[in-house]
Amino acid sequence: MHLHLRDDDMLKLVAPKTSNTFAGALIMPNLLPPITTKEALLAYKKRIQEACKNDEFEPHVTIFFQVDYSYEFLKEIKDEIIAVKLYPFGVTTNSETGVSSMDVEVLRPTLESMEKLGIPLCVHGETKGFMMDREKEFLPIYESLAINFPDLKIMMEHISSKESIDLLKKYDNLYATITVHHLMLTLDDVVGGMLNPHAFCKPIVKKPEDRKALLQLALSAHPKVMFGSDSAPHQKNTKECHHGAAGVFTSPIALQVLTQLFEEHGKLDNLNAFISLNAQRIYNLNPIKKEIRLIKKDFIVPEVYSYKSEQVVPLFAGQKLVWSIS
Amino acid sequence: MHLHLRDDDMLKLVAPKTSNTFAGALIMPNLLPPITTKEALLAYKKRIQEACKNDEFEPHVTIFFQVDYSYEFLKEIKDEIIAVKLYPFGVTTNSETGVSSMDVEVLRPTLESMEKLGIPLCVHGETKGFMMDREKEFLPIYESLAINFPDLKIMMEHISSKESIDLLKKYDNLYATITVHHLMLTLDDVVGGMLNPHAFCKPIVKKPEDRKALLQLALSAHPKVMFGSDSAPHQKNTKECHHGAAGVFTSPIALQVLTQLFEEHGKLDNLNAFISLNAQRIYNLNPIKKEIRLIKKDFIVPEVYSYKSEQVVPLFAGQKLVWSIS
Repeated sequence: MHLHLRDDDMLKLVAPKTSNTFAGALIMPNLLPPITTKEALLAYKKRIQEACKNDEFEPHVTIFFQVDYSYEFLKEIKDEIIAVKLYPFGVTTNSETGVSSMDVEVLRPTLESMEKLGIPLCVHGETKGFMMDREKEFLPIYESLAINFPDLKIMMEHISSKESIDLLKKYDNLYATITVHHLMLTLDDVVGGMLNPHAFCKPIVKKPEDRKALLQLALSAHPKVMFGSDSAPHQKNTKECHHGAAGVFTSPIALQVLTQLFEEHGKLDNLNAFISLNAQRIYNLNPIKKEIRLIKKDFIVPEVYSYKSEQVVPLFAGQKLVWSIS
Repeated sequence: MHLHLRDDDMLKLVAPKTSNTFAGALIMPNLLPPITTKEALLAYKKRIQEACKNDEFEPHVTIFFQVDYSYEFLKEIKDEIIAVKLYPFGVTTNSETGVSSMDVEVLRPTLESMEKLGIPLCVHGETKGFMMDREKEFLPIYESLAINFPDLKIMMEHISSKESIDLLKKYDNLYATITVHHLMLTLDDVVGGMLNPHAFCKPIVKKPEDRKALLQLALSAHPKVMFGSDSAPHQKNTKECHHGAAGVFTSPIALQVLTQLFEEHGKLDNLNAFISLNAQRIYNLNPIKKEIRLIKKDFIVPEVYSYKSEQVVPLFAGQKLVWSIS
């Protein structure tokens, strides 16, 4: 329930890497320029469908939060989108047109319209503080949104710290997604040994105790928690460079890794709820039927995925996973 | 008092970048293989002198700590070295032959010999724990060394966390070096915005409160604290890659940056003590006379320094400093 597909050749490269194993995904709107109109939305959805190369995948598209969306516009677009995604200004890739103030009164017009129309809000919840504290510092903002808009479903995207879990449980209208990488990695995997740009993301993966708390939440398939990969491809040479881009590409390995993780902890029974059922219930989805088969067979993660001049390095490149998709 | 000059073409590239502005430096022995014999030491010193291209620089060389150094060997080499450098196994670049146990009894024979002979010990003080905690976890080991070998001068190299400062002050035989990058950067500068491999080092730069405490200590020119750049060049393509090497290259900018920093805080009077006088007293050095002139003139840090196929990117590449060396 949190996927970046980008556009152009990158879209053509990465879209099939999700559509061949998933029945649907919530697609993020942070293109350049971001998706803020119905025309741009429908055109992007069409490009995604063409890039997917099969009909067994539903792209649940979103638009980029703006403080000046009118009720009429949101009403008109309601049936085309699954949610509106809010980025604070400058916190991650292509968020330069994000909101510059998280003041509730500034956000109120759009959020009240969404609340009335039943459109969920997805949030990249980080301040611009010290990187280890950004999500923690954002929690009062989540709390204020939860209190001020009690009928608005608020998705705390890609939660990364243990403090977020308490807040999630405190308010009925808060939900959360968790990525594969926040379940598997800590900051040690980024800067603890050799520097690994392909594990560098925002929010940054954090301490062992944060990972542990998130893992416990995911393994229990807590009903307010959904898998959201935040798979975020970047060109290899924009990651392995002087000013590396933030984002971890996990689409082609997410299912295998999650299966391995849930199996190791004896929680395979909860895997479907975490990956799919919780999201169906929270978003009122009725997904297309699709069957994939996971088999216990070694899968060596490719070093790179390529299409034309696009090259993307997945997480765990070159490493062995014990589950394959047949 | 902490410099990596490497070898071969890299040595030829970086040695003049220190020798043209400094009168001397303590040179680390972590080559491949490490410097552990008198022959290797003298040959390396000669290569350094040749690479420096001038006589106004004294390379204070060191050997790589081994648990089986005999008293006789240390006595024979005593006048050739300024210190012995101890690396725990696997904690940083070329430390694969480092000590595998930091147990005092394992280290005792060598350390007692050094204590008797008056040879200082330099230590890379990190465990293999979570990256933010490695130095903190190492403090009991420093404490044990300080207590067990009261006449051994122990240099806590490149201290990076505020907890180290308390311990430093607690034992008379503990001293410390601080780098430019630990005074200037926090983890935000490595992974807080775009990923910056050229600010990635071990120990990693830490939280704002750590930087603040170190800065206060350096600005006061605390008598037990010395500037040690830990300038550690790596080939550009071994930094900007999938498995990036740890080390920050600061030799050509260290004096300018420190001058700017001490000036900004109104502590220029303490600069000489921090950079030079404290080290002279602690190590009983009588350096050659050398004059350089810093002028208030913009200096744009080069994007890269090159020699033959070697390319090294300095910290603050492309950025403007307000002091230049005339």
